[in-house]
Amino acid sequence: MSKLIEALQEQVGRSKEYVAFTHANAATPYLADAKQKYQRKLCESLDEILDRCELHDGMTISFHHAFREGDKVINLVVDKLASLGLKGITLASSSLMTCNAPLINHIRNGVITKIYTSGMRGELADAISHGLMEEPVQIHSHGGRVNLIQNGEINIDVAFLAVSCSDEYGNASGSGGKSRCGSLGYAMVDATYAKRVVLLTESIEPFPYMPASIVQDQVDYIVKIDSVGDPAKISVGAARVTSNPRELMIARSAADVVEHSGYFEQGFSIQTGSGAASTACTRFLESRMKNKNITASFALGGITGSIVDLHEKGLIAKLLDTQSFDSAAAASLARNPNHVEISTNVYANPASKAACCDRVDIVILSALEIDTNFNVNVLTGSDGVMRGASGGHCDVAAAANLTVVVAPLIRSRIPTVVKHVTTCVTPGESIDVLVTDHGIAVNPSRPEIYQRLVDKGLPVVSIEDLYQRALEISGHPKAIEFTSKIVGVVRYRDGSVIDVVRQVKE
Amino acid sequence: MSKLIEALQEQVGRSKEYVAFTHANAATPYLADAKQKYQRKLCESLDEILDRCELHDGMTISFHHAFREGDKVINLVVDKLASLGLKGITLASSSLMTCNAPLINHIRNGVITKIYTSGMRGELADAISHGLMEEPVQIHSHGGRVNLIQNGEINIDVAFLAVSCSDEYGNASGSGGKSRCGSLGYAMVDATYAKRVVLLTESIEPFPYMPASIVQDQVDYIVKIDSVGDPAKISVGAARVTSNPRELMIARSAADVVEHSGYFEQGFSIQTGSGAASTACTRFLESRMKNKNITASFALGGITGSIVDLHEKGLIAKLLDTQSFDSAAAASLARNPNHVEISTNVYANPASKAACCDRVDIVILSALEIDTNFNVNVLTGSDGVMRGASGGHCDVAAAANLTVVVAPLIRSRIPTVVKHVTTCVTPGESIDVLVTDHGIAVNPSRPEIYQRLVDKGLPVVSIEDLYQRALEISGHPKAIEFTSKIVGVVRYRDGSVIDVVRQVKE
Repeated sequence: MSKLIEALQEQVGRSKEYVAFTHANAATPYLADAKQKYQRKLCESLDEILDRCELHDGMTISFHHAFREGDKVINLVVDKLASLGLKGITLASSSLMTCNAPLINHIRNGVITKIYTSGMRGELADAISHGLMEEPVQIHSHGGRVNLIQNGEINIDVAFLAVSCSDEYGNASGSGGKSRCGSLGYAMVDATYAKRVVLLTESIEPFPYMPASIVQDQVDYIVKIDSVGDPAKISVGAARVTSNPRELMIARSAADVVEHSGYFEQGFSIQTGSGAASTACTRFLESRMKNKNITASFALGGITGSIVDLHEKGLIAKLLDTQSFDSAAAASLARNPNHVEISTNVYANPASKAACCDRVDIVILSALEIDTNFNVNVLTGSDGVMRGASGGHCDVAAAANLTVVVAPLIRSRIPTVVKHVTTCVTPGESIDVLVTDHGIAVNPSRPEIYQRLVDKGLPVVSIEDLYQRALEISGHPKAIEFTSKIVGVVRYRDGSVIDVVRQVKE
Repeated sequence: MSKLIEALQEQVGRSKEYVAFTHANAATPYLADAKQKYQRKLCESLDEILDRCELHDGMTISFHHAFREGDKVINLVVDKLASLGLKGITLASSSLMTCNAPLINHIRNGVITKIYTSGMRGELADAISHGLMEEPVQIHSHGGRVNLIQNGEINIDVAFLAVSCSDEYGNASGSGGKSRCGSLGYAMVDATYAKRVVLLTESIEPFPYMPASIVQDQVDYIVKIDSVGDPAKISVGAARVTSNPRELMIARSAADVVEHSGYFEQGFSIQTGSGAASTACTRFLESRMKNKNITASFALGGITGSIVDLHEKGLIAKLLDTQSFDSAAAASLARNPNHVEISTNVYANPASKAACCDRVDIVILSALEIDTNFNVNVLTGSDGVMRGASGGHCDVAAAANLTVVVAPLIRSRIPTVVKHVTTCVTPGESIDVLVTDHGIAVNPSRPEIYQRLVDKGLPVVSIEDLYQRALEISGHPKAIEFTSKIVGVVRYRDGSVIDVVRQVKE
């Protein structure tokens, strides 16, 4: 054999070094051992996985938030890492929720020193808003997160991905098994880019569990645990279904805007963001679609049971799902062949070779605040404390042909329409229409839409009018007091800094 | 804004440079223009694509061979590159066929100077075997090709991928539209790793064409052409269906071996390689499965109409398809939800995090020659000229629990069983059983299988007996005369050199 390599190198020159064949399984020694061959990824416990992952201080770990308030994996893994004495970890979860309050202690103890997330809520958000962390939290959009991963700013050492089921090789999904979160759109990205990919699964299915959302060639280790999440808690909080009359009234008014916007045509496409009035808008579209005898080509994004309902009635041809917003959507993903799971790279990354949000005609988004320049805040509350998430807000707003924001004019006696948003997440240039319970305002950059809505007799006013109306009702709210310390950096989808969040004074 | 960045940099230090937000579409200027937004990937002609691809001498281009002898894209693109005056191109097609004879001129003229392929046939193979190229051709297995791509030896500048249909964003498949090749298993790899990905498609479907085999975030440019391939010619040559009585007899005998091998149990898995006797074996398994009342968990690899037939009869639960070997298989892929397309990385790459071939119980493979050490040649003919392909042969042989080779003892009066193979592609240690029309030989390393077959009264002889028998019938064939020039380097699946092919003397 060496003579053969010798002859070859002589002929082709030494610039390319060839290696001689030794034996069939030199590169695949596990094939010689039946247990290794089939079960080399399976670990007995999370401890075993952590042992095999070569953990180190300062590493970056990632999670997905598809279970939203029902997640059971993030706290579990960070607890374990803390008990192993790890420090200086960067936590890159696609988002964080109220359920992640136990992380506060791990931040205090130096286990977690940096966070990338789409947003945060509850006690964790409160503590961070009050200066818990030395390093400001990086707030990104869903599309922007993929951008940061691709350009290396988020460099994931280990992705810990909760799935409802997987086979021994790592073919996994969130729409089979018991605790179904539905789409694994966020996890698909981490599975592609993380140096090591760990699955935490509730069940081990027979090989081959295919087609799969996460595929075996992306997965390093697998461990079965009792419960990865509670799907009943997916639609708690921001993704709840509303029966609040004011939210329903706003949703109905948004449906009027959609109907007369000029974009409500055969084959239109739509997305509804999280937020009760936004998701509720779907319910008012059915009759309008039937009356006009049109169907939608696709619905994108966070998919809800109401959207599935329209799909199953033949009113929406395809559902492109990067996050299932309730268990009805998760169940549909398993059942409907035209309910398709897409990664967040395919969904909304501005650096992707193509993002589906670029094809959206109409998007209905929510807001915590919107100012007279149409800038939107979906992150900080009226007390300056973080209580929301960037989500796909600025991604789809930038891309859609018609971006509608829905919000009540006043929330808990505090105006939603303001002179300047506390925190700017989505720039006003991306917002076309604001729908409130006190009237509709159209961005002056879209005079044609203004005209269409006025022609149909909708209650269109200027955003300045809405601002004044809010002041009349609730008076000038007391200004929030901040220290100079920056506790959050709001990254626009392209990675640039669009705003910062400062520490709230006691 | 700059004040904000200033404050931020002051707090976090200068190690991380932040960029200030400018405007919503700074990174996505195409969103401002409706044509750019929807159709920026669509090109009017192949010329326009080549213009946009920034071609250069010495570049590496790739293709898939899913249309086998019906391919119309490889020659078309190389012709065009030649007409543009490009030189020194490395051609990395997953394989080459008789239909690629027109490449001879482009090699002669210096357009193509290096080739990576699984194999070659016809005039092209003949010319190269006789010394057409200065640089030896690199012959790889299907799994090994992915390994070479991942480790950077094959560094694809532009992948030109034939698909039967795609939408404007590049969501594409080989199982919709008119000319269906079925699985795009090879193309999926190139779409993942090539610097630029070009789709040549027969039809542009409405967005979103999902689920898709190649996804929009992998695709740069798209051009519609009249015809990408002739699916009727997929099953010409190596993938043909046989009615040859000797081939059928060998196939039946192989089915006997499978039945009594010890691996024919409930839930077994199977692959049949290309080669008429190998694919024909499927037909003889049905009755044996029914008699034993067992079903298979999956069939892997090149999927044929006969395998689809067993799937649709409920005898094989899943089909994992990296290449559809006939139009019946291509049609099934579109129809059967448990007929799943897999990339060649998932199929057989030894460097993949998991390859499906590692789960195969039984594989039936063909051979041009096999020697008394069970080494197999599937590349060169009895005249020393290349006329075959490495394919998945060494990949699955290394991994399967039972590797059966089927071959006639004599072909055109030349022995198939020889003392030393002309070219070694798969090492004898990976082969367990040889089935010929003159008896069955078992590798001495598998005494338990020998015993099972003998116990069932199968005609088991030693491979030395088969060799002597062949000599008795056809006499010692005249030795092939080679020059010292190496024209082909046979790379084992792990990238090592297992053999070389030398230039045939006139």
